[in-house]
Amino acid sequence: MTSTVPVGSAPAERAEVHARADAFVTELSDWLRIPSISADPGHHDDVARSAAWLAERLRADGWPRVEVWGAGSGDGTTALPAVWAHWPATDPTAPTVLVYGHHDVQPADLADGWSFPPFDPEVVGEELRGRGASDDKGHVAMVLLGVRAHLAATGAAAPAVSLTLLVEGEEESGSAHLAELLDAHRDALTCDQVVVTDTGMVDRSTPTVCTGMRGMVDTEVTFRGASVDLHSGQFGGAVANPVTELARLVAALHDADGHVRVPGFYDDVREPSDVERAAWAALPFDEPAWLAGAAAGAGATAGEAGWSTYERLWARPTAEVNGLHGGYGGPGPKTIVPHSATAKLTFRLVADQDPRRIASAVEEFVHARTPAGVTAEVRLGGPGVPPLVCDLGSPLVASVREAMGLALGTEVLPAREGGSGPEALLATELDAPLAFLGVMLPSDRIHAPDERAVLPLLLSGAEAIAHLWRLLALRDGAV
Amino acid sequence: MTSTVPVGSAPAERAEVHARADAFVTELSDWLRIPSISADPGHHDDVARSAAWLAERLRADGWPRVEVWGAGSGDGTTALPAVWAHWPATDPTAPTVLVYGHHDVQPADLADGWSFPPFDPEVVGEELRGRGASDDKGHVAMVLLGVRAHLAATGAAAPAVSLTLLVEGEEESGSAHLAELLDAHRDALTCDQVVVTDTGMVDRSTPTVCTGMRGMVDTEVTFRGASVDLHSGQFGGAVANPVTELARLVAALHDADGHVRVPGFYDDVREPSDVERAAWAALPFDEPAWLAGAAAGAGATAGEAGWSTYERLWARPTAEVNGLHGGYGGPGPKTIVPHSATAKLTFRLVADQDPRRIASAVEEFVHARTPAGVTAEVRLGGPGVPPLVCDLGSPLVASVREAMGLALGTEVLPAREGGSGPEALLATELDAPLAFLGVMLPSDRIHAPDERAVLPLLLSGAEAIAHLWRLLALRDGAV
Repeated sequence: MTSTVPVGSAPAERAEVHARADAFVTELSDWLRIPSISADPGHHDDVARSAAWLAERLRADGWPRVEVWGAGSGDGTTALPAVWAHWPATDPTAPTVLVYGHHDVQPADLADGWSFPPFDPEVVGEELRGRGASDDKGHVAMVLLGVRAHLAATGAAAPAVSLTLLVEGEEESGSAHLAELLDAHRDALTCDQVVVTDTGMVDRSTPTVCTGMRGMVDTEVTFRGASVDLHSGQFGGAVANPVTELARLVAALHDADGHVRVPGFYDDVREPSDVERAAWAALPFDEPAWLAGAAAGAGATAGEAGWSTYERLWARPTAEVNGLHGGYGGPGPKTIVPHSATAKLTFRLVADQDPRRIASAVEEFVHARTPAGVTAEVRLGGPGVPPLVCDLGSPLVASVREAMGLALGTEVLPAREGGSGPEALLATELDAPLAFLGVMLPSDRIHAPDERAVLPLLLSGAEAIAHLWRLLALRDGAV
Repeated sequence: MTSTVPVGSAPAERAEVHARADAFVTELSDWLRIPSISADPGHHDDVARSAAWLAERLRADGWPRVEVWGAGSGDGTTALPAVWAHWPATDPTAPTVLVYGHHDVQPADLADGWSFPPFDPEVVGEELRGRGASDDKGHVAMVLLGVRAHLAATGAAAPAVSLTLLVEGEEESGSAHLAELLDAHRDALTCDQVVVTDTGMVDRSTPTVCTGMRGMVDTEVTFRGASVDLHSGQFGGAVANPVTELARLVAALHDADGHVRVPGFYDDVREPSDVERAAWAALPFDEPAWLAGAAAGAGATAGEAGWSTYERLWARPTAEVNGLHGGYGGPGPKTIVPHSATAKLTFRLVADQDPRRIASAVEEFVHARTPAGVTAEVRLGGPGVPPLVCDLGSPLVASVREAMGLALGTEVLPAREGGSGPEALLATELDAPLAFLGVMLPSDRIHAPDERAVLPLLLSGAEAIAHLWRLLALRDGAV
């Protein structure tokens, strides 16, 4: 696919990116020193400082409209600050592309097992190390660099497509106000296409573009028996044990082949296309290396029979116990029949599963399996997150693959990610096709101690961004 | 059985008990004000004060030999103080009976849900309310009162049998040093028969004598997966979840009929005799009342198919989960595949199960059910507690039933208890037949807030004790 693009167009963008590489590392490092942890109220001032830093950086880059939305902006929401910027294309008929990213970061503390200070970034070899270096400040900075390179390479005063930037400040704490933001600023966010930067590739040596993420339903199930813990000598064996019963429920979630046994769970599942399955099968997968590295010492792969690891992660829905607690957990024995037990269950969803329908099916499943002597309470964590799968045949996805292929000098295969994010909300609320463009690696340790980014990949990503605006303008003109 | 005893012998003991009832309540109340909580190091001075109180009380009663053993006694052990006393019979050929009880109590704090101060005892109607009123200070005081009544009724200067009293100070925290105490004081504890007071009846209106208790094995099983919690979006569905796997193990402990599935678990089980089963079937059992009261609002009975509630509690071994903890338990969701999970499992045993053999079988069961990708660790809590069943045909048990029948004016049926105590250790180490004599009721709330004792029952128990020494001397002479 990439071979159809004029060869001569690649070097200009690449040269412009590389000319700005040192400044890029310096400016990103400055930003990473601001611990913009949205989950920690003690760092909410830092989230505001981070937004102000970005707004200032965008103005310095020449973005004609830059605003900070959210807390303190007087628009009535209580969101942590998001940054919005807009740069109209020279050609008023060019499409508008909205780029989504976020500037808040996951919590990070040396005591969590970091081998370097999380907010004192440092370049070591090809890596920039620090919280946010990859997720997602590194990727937002990558977009800014790509826009600069695009303008320099084309010699124009404005981008080839109209650009809107939305950089959220609450993504790592659940994007609680994103729907409100989208609703409150509908006009400012009107666009023809959406590009999400908060994503990655399966492997450095095999570039991929993400074409889908899973949705999610989260629930909490509590089983209650007697009103107090009972003496296991006086009552053990003669009354139901809520921990045992909840364990039985959890055990009943899957059959021996790893299929989820909630009735109707698979009714709406759209299976991946043959094209996608073939592409995924072509991706290298070194199972021992994956287990030792990405899966942090997990001893074996496991899961639903009949599907590869990538298929299990990207195209199959799951039922996962995130925690189960009931009864005594202190030192030594305590001879009780516990009075209650609680499990946190999340269900990852794939297209075209409906979070509300799955939540109802889970509720029914729990109540149908609540034995005599036990009462069940099922709490739903919210409306759930819908899954999203990109249209592989769309001009947008084709342009992203082409742009990345140009930057990386190789074919870019489609892949997906197993996680869940606000992409379905963006696609639905903005009513526009969506694609992902990001260069995170599994070894970037996002959400974990010792986060880092691979700088040559961020530079290639910036080059891909620079190509993308040109390609989207061309393709739009061609269509 | 009771109808064969001379009628004229009952009133003397009863009158002597009742003449001393007010003093009994006063002295027991004094003792209950000492919070002798052995599980709490902050109360170990109180355990020592409690032992000193009892020793002083025994000396005042005329017991010729009284010693306090354990901490501070210079005998090399670190046990909390136990009280030993001995009163030789007038007839040097009379048998020696050792009475076992304990003077330490369960923890108690108003904040746990007490409706009265646990260590400020009060008489309300027929009840004496306070921690230890029943378990076991009330029962030790009952023995002292019974000895006084026995001496007064017989007019002798010494009891009809030689009496040895062993009142432990660590029973509520696991009797960790009891084996050492028995070994270190073997000569002082030599006896022909053992009577354990730390026990009760199934119902006030249907007096019973305990004729057996269950043994126990305690274990802790930990399943470990990856070295850290994994992101459930990135790994969920493709690696084993230790919480799910441990839940499956727990679910596999029982079949659909409630039978324990550990191979060999039932191999050595001695079933109750037809006599016992018939006696238990004759005991009244008001299931709704039992569920609402004793079982604290448990909604239904449950357990092994084919056995009644009493049979399940007294004659059937069990597998119980006392606690299971793994993964996230805080507010809201956390999308992880937990790295580990731990379950505390206890197995109640019945005659003739061997704790060591059951522990080995459990270990094998866990390892056989540890899936790929998970490692298992099984920790055993100690050597385990053997079960004990009394010989219903023995002269000792017959005498206890007769003594209680005289005191309560009705036939006393055999029953058992489902809990586990040091009785098997006592019977084995002292190499003597053992019987139980106690009047605790399920409604006494031992080990729970609002403990109380029914005073008329304690007085009847004291009368039974007074009868027992006489009956044992008679029976010994007769045999």
